[in-house]
Amino acid sequence: MKRVALFAGSFDPFTRGHEAVVEEALRLFDEVVIAVGENISKRSLLSVEQRCRLIADLYGKNSRVRVASYSTLTGDFAREVGAMALVRGVRNTVDFELERTMEATNRELFPGLTTILLVTPAEYMHISSSMVRELLAYGRKVDDYLPQGVDIAKYIE
Amino acid sequence: MKRVALFAGSFDPFTRGHEAVVEEALRLFDEVVIAVGENISKRSLLSVEQRCRLIADLYGKNSRVRVASYSTLTGDFAREVGAMALVRGVRNTVDFELERTMEATNRELFPGLTTILLVTPAEYMHISSSMVRELLAYGRKVDDYLPQGVDIAKYIE
Amino acid sequence: MKRVALFAGSFDPFTRGHEAVVEEALRLFDEVVIAVGENISKRSLLSVEQRCRLIADLYGKNSRVRVASYSTLTGDFAREVGAMALVRGVRNTVDFELERTMEATNRELFPGLTTILLVTPAEYMHISSSMVRELLAYGRKVDDYLPQGVDIAKYIE
Amino acid sequence: MKRVALFAGSFDPFTRGHEAVVEEALRLFDEVVIAVGENISKRSLLSVEQRCRLIADLYGKNSRVRVASYSTLTGDFAREVGAMALVRGVRNTVDFELERTMEATNRELFPGLTTILLVTPAEYMHISSSMVRELLAYGRKVDDYLPQGVDIAKYIE
Amino acid sequence: MKRVALFAGSFDPFTRGHEAVVEEALRLFDEVVIAVGENISKRSLLSVEQRCRLIADLYGKNSRVRVASYSTLTGDFAREVGAMALVRGVRNTVDFELERTMEATNRELFPGLTTILLVTPAEYMHISSSMVRELLAYGRKVDDYLPQGVDIAKYIE
Amino acid sequence: MKRVALFAGSFDPFTRGHEAVVEEALRLFDEVVIAVGENISKRSLLSVEQRCRLIADLYGKNSRVRVASYSTLTGDFAREVGAMALVRGVRNTVDFELERTMEATNRELFPGLTTILLVTPAEYMHISSSMVRELLAYGRKVDDYLPQGVDIAKYIE
Repeated sequence: MKRVALFAGSFDPFTRGHEAVVEEALRLFDEVVIAVGENISKRSLLSVEQRCRLIADLYGKNSRVRVASYSTLTGDFAREVGAMALVRGVRNTVDFELERTMEATNRELFPGLTTILLVTPAEYMHISSSMVRELLAYGRKVDDYLPQGVDIAKYIE
Repeated sequence: MKRVALFAGSFDPFTRGHEAVVEEALRLFDEVVIAVGENISKRSLLSVEQRCRLIADLYGKNSRVRVASYSTLTGDFAREVGAMALVRGVRNTVDFELERTMEATNRELFPGLTTILLVTPAEYMHISSSMVRELLAYGRKVDDYLPQGVDIAKYIE
Repeated sequence: MKRVALFAGSFDPFTRGHEAVVEEALRLFDEVVIAVGENISKRSLLSVEQRCRLIADLYGKNSRVRVASYSTLTGDFAREVGAMALVRGVRNTVDFELERTMEATNRELFPGLTTILLVTPAEYMHISSSMVRELLAYGRKVDDYLPQGVDIAKYIE
Repeated sequence: MKRVALFAGSFDPFTRGHEAVVEEALRLFDEVVIAVGENISKRSLLSVEQRCRLIADLYGKNSRVRVASYSTLTGDFAREVGAMALVRGVRNTVDFELERTMEATNRELFPGLTTILLVTPAEYMHISSSMVRELLAYGRKVDDYLPQGVDIAKYIE
Repeated sequence: MKRVALFAGSFDPFTRGHEAVVEEALRLFDEVVIAVGENISKRSLLSVEQRCRLIADLYGKNSRVRVASYSTLTGDFAREVGAMALVRGVRNTVDFELERTMEATNRELFPGLTTILLVTPAEYMHISSSMVRELLAYGRKVDDYLPQGVDIAKYIE
Repeated sequence: MKRVALFAGSFDPFTRGHEAVVEEALRLFDEVVIAVGENISKRSLLSVEQRCRLIADLYGKNSRVRVASYSTLTGDFAREVGAMALVRGVRNTVDFELERTMEATNRELFPGLTTILLVTPAEYMHISSSMVRELLAYGRKVDDYLPQGVDIAKYIE
C-alpha cells in the first residue's frame, strides 16, 4: 500500500518554509500531494494556476510529489487522493492554536485521517507567504525566502 | 524497508492519552517502539520495570509494538532501534513550546530523525501521568484515565 | 434580588459551544440574557432577527432565558438589562488574550460588572460559528455543531 | 438556596491578587469559602494554621466569608462545603493552560461543579505568593502586595 | 554619536500606551523618531497628516523627539533616519509571536538594526488604537486612553 | 554619562544564546555588566566562581564588558552598578509570560530601571543552560552551544 500524505495550503507563493515541510513529509511517506486551495476571499499575488506551475516546476522531476488544486474541504480532498495523513507546518503558538482547532474538526469529520504537525525549522520560522508578498510590494528581492532557484517574476505575468 | 517510530516518555503510568498517540502512530508506521526513559530525578509511582510491564501487557499481542527502556538521549535510542521518527503528543501551548525546543535540538543533533507532533484528542487533553498519580494519592479511581482494562494496582506492588 | 448574567456575541449561528456556556450560566444565575450584537462590518450567514429567532426557539420554554439584540457597547447593554456579570466562553490562549483585554476595558468603563470566563468543554472546543459557516459553504451537514434539534435551513431564508 | 463558591489555594501568603478574586466572588455569590490546601511537598513560608489565621483576621467581620483548610481533592472539599462553583484567578496564558486542564478534570470528576475564571486586575497581575516569599527572603517590604493593613511579620513566628 | 531609535506604527490614534513606550525609549536613546506608517489597506480614523499633527503637538517642545511619516519598509526608514534600534511595545503573547516574526525578518534584512521589545505597563495593556476607535464609534469619551490633554476631536475634521 | 546595562542570570553555563544577547546589548550601551546570580536552591554544574571565570575569559579583552556576581535582588544590583536598563533574552511565549511578570515587579520596585527584551536569534532559540547540562550528563559534546572556543571541561574541575 502506498502511503500518501496531503500538504494543503494557499501557497501564494510556495516558500522555503513550505519546501522544508515537503522534504520532511517525503522522508515519512511514499507520496506527497501538494494541493493549492482555491480561496476566493483572499487577495492573491498568483492565480491558482500560477501557484501550481511554480510548485510543479520545482518538483517536476520527483515522481513522489504530485501537485493539484482543489476547491472542496481539505479532508474531502484528502480522501479523493487517498491520503492517510494531513501534513501541516507549525511555526508558533498562534499557528498551533489554529491547527489544534482544525485537527479536532478533521478528526471528527474524517475518521482515519491523521493530522501531523511538523515544527518549522528555526531558520524559516519567520517566513510566510504574506511576508513574501509584502516584501514584493516594497520592491524587495525575495529569493532567500523562496526555494532555491525560483524566480517569482516568471510566475507573475 | 520497515518504517519505525519511537514514542518515548516517562509513562508513569501509561495513560489513555498515550494510548491515543500509539494508535495514531500505528496508522502511519509499520512499527512503534514505546520506550520508557529512566529519569532518576523524578519521583515515580512505578519503577521502570513496572511501567514496561504495564505497556507490554497492553500491547502484548500486537507484533507491531515493541516496548523498551532506555537511559541514553532519546535521539540516540531512536538510532539504536532504527526509528525514522519521534512521535510526540501535544496537548496545549505550554507543551508546544517545550516540544519545539526539543525538536530544534534533535534536528541539530540527529539529522534525518523527524519529529512528528500529534494533537492529543480533546477528550484526553487534560490527562497526564502526574494527574493520575495525584488522583491515586487521594485514593481516587483512575480507570477512566488508563487504557481500558488496565488495573493499576496490579503494577504497584 | 434577581441575579442576571449577560451572554453577548454574534451567534451567527448559535452553536453547541454557546449552548454549553448558557447551561453553565444558568447554574450560577437566576436569569441569562443572550444578546445578539449587531456587527455591521462582519459578513453574516443569518440576519440578527434570524439569529434571535433561532435562539428564542431553543429557549422558548425557559423563563430564565431572555433573548435580545443590541447595538451599543456590551457593557452599556449589560447595565440596561440589569446584569451583574458578563459570561464568556474561552476555548484557547488566543481567545484568552482577547478576553483579558476586553475584561480590563470593561472593568474600567463599567465598575461593578464582573467578567466570568468559562472554559469551553473539550468536546466543543473546536466549534465556532465561523467553522459552522464554512462547513455550510461546502454543503456539509452541521447538525453536530448546533444545539440538538436545530435545523439551520429553517432560519436561512 | 445559599450560593456558595470555593476559592482554594496555597495562599502562602494570601496576596492582594487573592483579595481581588474574593472581592469579585462576593459580588456573585452569597458566601465564599477560602480554603487553604495542605500541600506537603511545597516549601512554605507560613504553616497552614498561620495562613488561615491571616485570612481569618482579614475577613473576620464578614459573615459571608468562611476560612478553612483541607487535605482532600479540591472538588471533594467543594462538595463538603456545598459549593456550586470553584473560583480561580487567572493572570496569563501559562496560568490559563493549567486552569483549563484542571477545569476539564473537575468537570469530569465533579459534574455540576462549575469552574469560574476571573481575570486578575492588571495592577495585580505580577503578584504571586512566591514573588512575595522571594522579596521577603531578600529583606524587602511586601506591604504593597498584601491586603491593606496585613503585617506579615505577625504571622511568621 | 547620537543614538537614535525608531518607533514606527499606525498610531491611529497615538495612545497612552504609545506614550509610555516613547517615555521609556527617551530614557535609553538620545533621539526617538516616531514614524507614522502609511498603510493604505487599513480603514483609518485619522489621516496620516492628522496623526502626525497630533503627535507633533504632543512632543513639540521636546527636541529629542521627531515625528515623521513613511511609506517604505520600516527597516529602510530606520536606516534613512539613522536609527540603531526599533522600539516596539508588547502587550501579550499574541503580540509577542508577531513581534518575534518581524524581528527575525528585520534581523535578516537589516543587520545591525536591533529590535527592542518593551513590555507595556500593566495599566495600559488593554489599550489599543482600534479599541479607541471602537469606543469613539459608540460615542464614548476616550480621554483616559489618550495622552493627557489630547482632544481627539481637534484632529478629526 | 556612561550608559550601562545589566545582563543578569544563572549562566550555568554561559551559552551562545547569552553571547548573542551581550552582542546586541553592546550595540546599544556603553557598558554591559554580566552578573551571575547566586541561586542556592538550584543544582549547579559550575560554581559561581567558575561561571564568572568562563565569562571573564570570554570578554577579558573587552573593556566595555564587566563580569560580577551578586546575591541581592537583581534590581538592587542594577542600582549598585549604575545600570539604566536590564537586558533579557526571550525565546518563546513561556519565557515572555515570565519576563512580563518580572518586568512589572521591577517597574514597581525600581522606577527608572527599564527592562529591555531582546528576541533570541532563531538559530539559538532552543539553547539553554539546562539543555547544555543535560547533554553533558549524557556525555555529549556541547561546543556548538557555547561561545566559540570555550572548553567547558576547563571550568569543571
